[in-house]
Amino acid sequence: MPIDLRHDPEVVELVEKTERFIRDYVLPIEEAHNGDITAAGGDDLRREMNAKAKAEGIFAPHAPVEFGGLGLNMTDRAAVFEAAGYSTFGPVALHIGAPDEGNVHMLDHIASEEQRQKFLAPLASGEVRSAFAMTEPAPGAGADPDALNTQAVRVDGGWKINGTKHFITGAEGAAFFIIMARTAGSPGDRGGATMFLANADTPGITVGRHINTIDKAMIGGHCEVTFEDVFVPDEDILGEVDQGYRYAQVRLGPARMTHVMRWLGAAKRCHDVALDYVSRREGFGGKLGDLGMIQQMVADNEIDLAASRQLLLKACHELDLGNHASNETSIAKTFAAEAYSRIADRSMQMCGGLGVSADLPIARLAQELRPFRIYDGPSEVHRWAIARRAIGRAKKAQAAAEAK
Amino acid sequence: MPIDLRHDPEVVELVEKTERFIRDYVLPIEEAHNGDITAAGGDDLRREMNAKAKAEGIFAPHAPVEFGGLGLNMTDRAAVFEAAGYSTFGPVALHIGAPDEGNVHMLDHIASEEQRQKFLAPLASGEVRSAFAMTEPAPGAGADPDALNTQAVRVDGGWKINGTKHFITGAEGAAFFIIMARTAGSPGDRGGATMFLANADTPGITVGRHINTIDKAMIGGHCEVTFEDVFVPDEDILGEVDQGYRYAQVRLGPARMTHVMRWLGAAKRCHDVALDYVSRREGFGGKLGDLGMIQQMVADNEIDLAASRQLLLKACHELDLGNHASNETSIAKTFAAEAYSRIADRSMQMCGGLGVSADLPIARLAQELRPFRIYDGPSEVHRWAIARRAIGRAKKAQAAAEAK
Amino acid sequence: MPIDLRHDPEVVELVEKTERFIRDYVLPIEEAHNGDITAAGGDDLRREMNAKAKAEGIFAPHAPVEFGGLGLNMTDRAAVFEAAGYSTFGPVALHIGAPDEGNVHMLDHIASEEQRQKFLAPLASGEVRSAFAMTEPAPGAGADPDALNTQAVRVDGGWKINGTKHFITGAEGAAFFIIMARTAGSPGDRGGATMFLANADTPGITVGRHINTIDKAMIGGHCEVTFEDVFVPDEDILGEVDQGYRYAQVRLGPARMTHVMRWLGAAKRCHDVALDYVSRREGFGGKLGDLGMIQQMVADNEIDLAASRQLLLKACHELDLGNHASNETSIAKTFAAEAYSRIADRSMQMCGGLGVSADLPIARLAQELRPFRIYDGPSEVHRWAIARRAIGRAKKAQAAAEAK
Amino acid sequence: MPIDLRHDPEVVELVEKTERFIRDYVLPIEEAHNGDITAAGGDDLRREMNAKAKAEGIFAPHAPVEFGGLGLNMTDRAAVFEAAGYSTFGPVALHIGAPDEGNVHMLDHIASEEQRQKFLAPLASGEVRSAFAMTEPAPGAGADPDALNTQAVRVDGGWKINGTKHFITGAEGAAFFIIMARTAGSPGDRGGATMFLANADTPGITVGRHINTIDKAMIGGHCEVTFEDVFVPDEDILGEVDQGYRYAQVRLGPARMTHVMRWLGAAKRCHDVALDYVSRREGFGGKLGDLGMIQQMVADNEIDLAASRQLLLKACHELDLGNHASNETSIAKTFAAEAYSRIADRSMQMCGGLGVSADLPIARLAQELRPFRIYDGPSEVHRWAIARRAIGRAKKAQAAAEAK
Repeated sequence: MPIDLRHDPEVVELVEKTERFIRDYVLPIEEAHNGDITAAGGDDLRREMNAKAKAEGIFAPHAPVEFGGLGLNMTDRAAVFEAAGYSTFGPVALHIGAPDEGNVHMLDHIASEEQRQKFLAPLASGEVRSAFAMTEPAPGAGADPDALNTQAVRVDGGWKINGTKHFITGAEGAAFFIIMARTAGSPGDRGGATMFLANADTPGITVGRHINTIDKAMIGGHCEVTFEDVFVPDEDILGEVDQGYRYAQVRLGPARMTHVMRWLGAAKRCHDVALDYVSRREGFGGKLGDLGMIQQMVADNEIDLAASRQLLLKACHELDLGNHASNETSIAKTFAAEAYSRIADRSMQMCGGLGVSADLPIARLAQELRPFRIYDGPSEVHRWAIARRAIGRAKKAQAAAEAK
Repeated sequence: MPIDLRHDPEVVELVEKTERFIRDYVLPIEEAHNGDITAAGGDDLRREMNAKAKAEGIFAPHAPVEFGGLGLNMTDRAAVFEAAGYSTFGPVALHIGAPDEGNVHMLDHIASEEQRQKFLAPLASGEVRSAFAMTEPAPGAGADPDALNTQAVRVDGGWKINGTKHFITGAEGAAFFIIMARTAGSPGDRGGATMFLANADTPGITVGRHINTIDKAMIGGHCEVTFEDVFVPDEDILGEVDQGYRYAQVRLGPARMTHVMRWLGAAKRCHDVALDYVSRREGFGGKLGDLGMIQQMVADNEIDLAASRQLLLKACHELDLGNHASNETSIAKTFAAEAYSRIADRSMQMCGGLGVSADLPIARLAQELRPFRIYDGPSEVHRWAIARRAIGRAKKAQAAAEAK
Repeated sequence: MPIDLRHDPEVVELVEKTERFIRDYVLPIEEAHNGDITAAGGDDLRREMNAKAKAEGIFAPHAPVEFGGLGLNMTDRAAVFEAAGYSTFGPVALHIGAPDEGNVHMLDHIASEEQRQKFLAPLASGEVRSAFAMTEPAPGAGADPDALNTQAVRVDGGWKINGTKHFITGAEGAAFFIIMARTAGSPGDRGGATMFLANADTPGITVGRHINTIDKAMIGGHCEVTFEDVFVPDEDILGEVDQGYRYAQVRLGPARMTHVMRWLGAAKRCHDVALDYVSRREGFGGKLGDLGMIQQMVADNEIDLAASRQLLLKACHELDLGNHASNETSIAKTFAAEAYSRIADRSMQMCGGLGVSADLPIARLAQELRPFRIYDGPSEVHRWAIARRAIGRAKKAQAAAEAK
Repeated sequence: MPIDLRHDPEVVELVEKTERFIRDYVLPIEEAHNGDITAAGGDDLRREMNAKAKAEGIFAPHAPVEFGGLGLNMTDRAAVFEAAGYSTFGPVALHIGAPDEGNVHMLDHIASEEQRQKFLAPLASGEVRSAFAMTEPAPGAGADPDALNTQAVRVDGGWKINGTKHFITGAEGAAFFIIMARTAGSPGDRGGATMFLANADTPGITVGRHINTIDKAMIGGHCEVTFEDVFVPDEDILGEVDQGYRYAQVRLGPARMTHVMRWLGAAKRCHDVALDYVSRREGFGGKLGDLGMIQQMVADNEIDLAASRQLLLKACHELDLGNHASNETSIAKTFAAEAYSRIADRSMQMCGGLGVSADLPIARLAQELRPFRIYDGPSEVHRWAIARRAIGRAKKAQAAAEAK
């Protein structure tokens, strides 16, 4: 059978439904917020939009069917999430924003039956939100996860956790946390991490200040969170002790790709706004869109969008086959994150003074997109990983040749 | 059914067979030529390599089965052609080089039954080579095909052709020409072109000097060709009169993509040579491959290769669906041609002094790859076409919105 | 005498004084504003800082000596303005911010003796601020100045002006406006513009909304301004009628260069903050600054800073020689504006999550710097002008060769 | 006194004389070679061109006046060398090619009076050529000079040298060698190198194969050279024992800059050829030079040329002041080498099919220019050095701040 890149008709229909939902329902809401995209409007609006999305049959397309989701695989998610990401309010409306979407994915793969009911069910349905507490301030776990500093020590019937996290997306208002803490080894060691589930009202958990990043749309912010003698009973360990890094991989690859999906929609919107502008605006004896240098920017946007989309599809397909796909997701993430900044920047440039003003959405979308080159692993760390694998292959080939 | 990017097992096997053929049979031949890749060794070697490829069952994977080919579609060709392109002698060895491969493709779609027997059969089997005579010196048809200057005038029983062409790949030694000539309108007009088939020994056809381009591997060179009162009988018109531009489209998209395929193999080889070098060579207290700036170049090569491959796959899939795919092939061609230059350049840089010498194949491969940003439509022309389509879409959307 | 790039000792001393003033006095004020750089703190703070700068003997280094300035030429200004631009509050502190600095420069060259006393004297001394009203909303004068739409019609004893401007920097709180209006020809024609001086309280002048651009530090904002039957008496015409474009050139070249100077300081600061960060922060078994990919960003920043500085110097020198220097200022402006964005972006990347937060000043400086690729002529317009001159030279050379 | 970037009138005149010499005398010779620029025509032509240059009063502008040169400083050399570099035969014609020009410079600074007469006098006058033998094949001295492997051991009355060098420019036909050999320490150690002067006919010196690099114009090639028990008497030590690295610095900075100068001329020529082409050639309803994407390439070439020239001037000025200028020369070299590749590449692209053919000189000039990103220290090594200095400054500032 020949290779086929086409989605099934029902997925195509779902994508079109999502596009209409965004265009007719979500974008007007966003516009009514007059450029203030903070927390995508907050939790009340979230619940309102979620209800509407449920009514339209497009809510939580990634979540397990048993909990009200549509159970899409990664390649199909790609198209739906891109459509949702067209508005900064879209991912929250469909309940596919970070970190909840990734947490649903991970819990679906790892959680015990009790944990599924207790944590996954209310999360998948949008009843509550969650947070994933891994990143730490220097010298802790950041781009280099081995530096994990937060400690969990064995106590009677469970573990006691102490440590400080930051850049914890969605922490404000989260109902529970997935906490990554060290149960073996020392900061700098590979391995020795465990994941713990803890309700937000567990004594010792404090959500601190919101880090004032240039992206604003994440509901619940990027927060500092401290854990002081936080007790987690054994039954709330997610998976097995000391296997935290392995589970993080389960989350990481797909979560990286869903960022690529959602922000692809945002990048597409920048481009569309610029296209609309240059095809209307007069200057230099014609439309701006008739000028070669403008056309070059338009074409480069089109190329960047197409390449991002195809690299994403390839990585999603590998994930759907059950592979780790670390290389494919690193490649797609690195390319896309950089492409999105380029697209936003060219779109801004095409719109001149208005492009750098709040009169058009491009400038604020550019701010949403920029951090992606840092979040989920800076480009430099991904390049390092990609290169090490390639060089490893070369060394293996040399060893094989010499063995002959 | 979920999207599937995997080739069928028999195609996978064919690719592996091709890789072995290139590694074990073709590369040693290339190496024996000591860096002289002119005309990929010439016609005698071509016939010898073709025989071997036939024996291996990998000859002419794109050609119709009735003429001894394997009848692969575009997505499957992609993987086999990439494998063949790893050696500059590979495409000739499999008989999938330009322009023959594109001519086989076009004749298979357009030729009459008589023409199939007379022209396609010997071409598909590798008995003869062919040339496609479209490009003209200034002010004729170049990046701008409408400037077509070569004239065909109606005479008794056929047409008489006069004109000058240049950059005619494979002209030296071609058994026949497909000649693009104007049968209606004036230079600058859209349309009015017709394709003619003419044996190379037809009176009035003269193959002139080889243009001394930096790429050297094309068998039959890039030649100047003049047509002086060349008579072509009506039965040797390819397709219908005045439909030449339409047929050129049939050839153009796929031919563009097979360039992308073959040169992807060449780019991959540059990268592999550099990888081998930096993973062996010591410097600055370790292997070169341990240095961050080298790793960045390695990773960027990997990303460029991956993106080229996926954009190619997408365009091939569109072609396989029977679409014109002008946009997808323009995007894939533009991205890939530029990516290949970057890959060759980084690979050269990684290998230092040896990289710019004939001691490694990278420098000469870089020369093979560079013209692709000009051949088959310069990047600027493709960008212009891509942008015009995008802006056209925006204008249509505006008109639709206003119509409401 | 050999070429000498060194400033005179008294200028070097002035630069060092300015650096100390910024470091010890201005930066602490900026820090006290906690990242809120709106309008560089406003007019009260401006007067306070101006007084301090006067006391230090570094106030208004560009202004005529007769009005309390230091009378520096362009090459010497370059170094002082760069030092001042290190803080977003620095240019206002020294009274060398746009548009006042450019207006002082232009008035000094063109104003009549009466106008010098009435407008230049209070402006040069910092008693008042001013605005330059040229840019118009579409389809008026923007990147293409010939589109000038604002009309001045002859009335008894003067002119009556009607029109709408936008992006008028410093309009809010300006004591007077320099208004560019059409006195001959139609929108699209070359020439036919005149400059008018008008106090802000002249009937018919209305400062409208502040355009909410991503840069925030300009005192008086970027405003919409309307002129409705604004009467300007003949004695308040700046220079001669219909010579507005010629005078605009007097302002344009130097004003472009002083932007390059001030923002060079801001770019330098981004780089310094990143350098400080990567030379402290641990990760991957050492300091971040020991990693090759970080070093590449550091080096590219250094190269970009150096090239911007030298191109600026070259353009300033041409201006000091009394040349229009349109080409040199276009080249310096285009390169520098793009280099500053690159520098800010790399600096952000080096600082990871903190780089995209308000915890470091880089993210907001990036927002200050980005619009410079659009303000004062988008890069595309400058490239067009640069190319046209180069191609014009080639054509002239051809004509000369043919004439032989 | 204000900064002045203008050359003295006699230097301006010298530059113009050189431009005329190149245009009227050297370029016709180059053209008569029909694209074969190997060794810039060889030694017989060199002598003929040298005689002509002497007659014109422009020979050896860098050499000491006592030996027939013009004794120009670095900033003045810059303009003359650029003019000469416009033809690939120009530097040889003026006797300012590598490595002779750098050897003259170094000998003038370091040689003893006897060595001046014996080695410098015939070299400066163009009677003979010379070579500088430093670079070694892996694992010896390459990008990392500390890896120096060639050994000199003390013997009665002098030293005995053994080792292998490669990429020794000008070796074939050189009258004498300056040999860098280790007199203390082991490969990998800083320091311990000494420079030796040895006539080419000294027993034990063998010039081996020419490395077949993509640049062809260097007279005497890039050769492998072996030293087998080569005896050098004490009086032919250049400077003092163990001070070789220090002297290499004397040569390195200026030699780097003269490469930048000469190849600036070559890059300028690529641009001029492309300008001439796009201002004549019709296409797409006008001249190519009227198209925005072509104009962008033209403007980017202009910007790259201007920035290279100004960074060069800055570095030369620092050298003229007697400073090491390692940072300034690294910055100028790195920027310029990369800019020249970009310029050649854009120029090629603008000329389409002819650009990648031998019908225009651009393609071969591109091959001359490409290796400069590797020769004289790859860009990566320069970036590493630039970054280390910048980070070192940051650390020093931190230590100073902490000391308070």
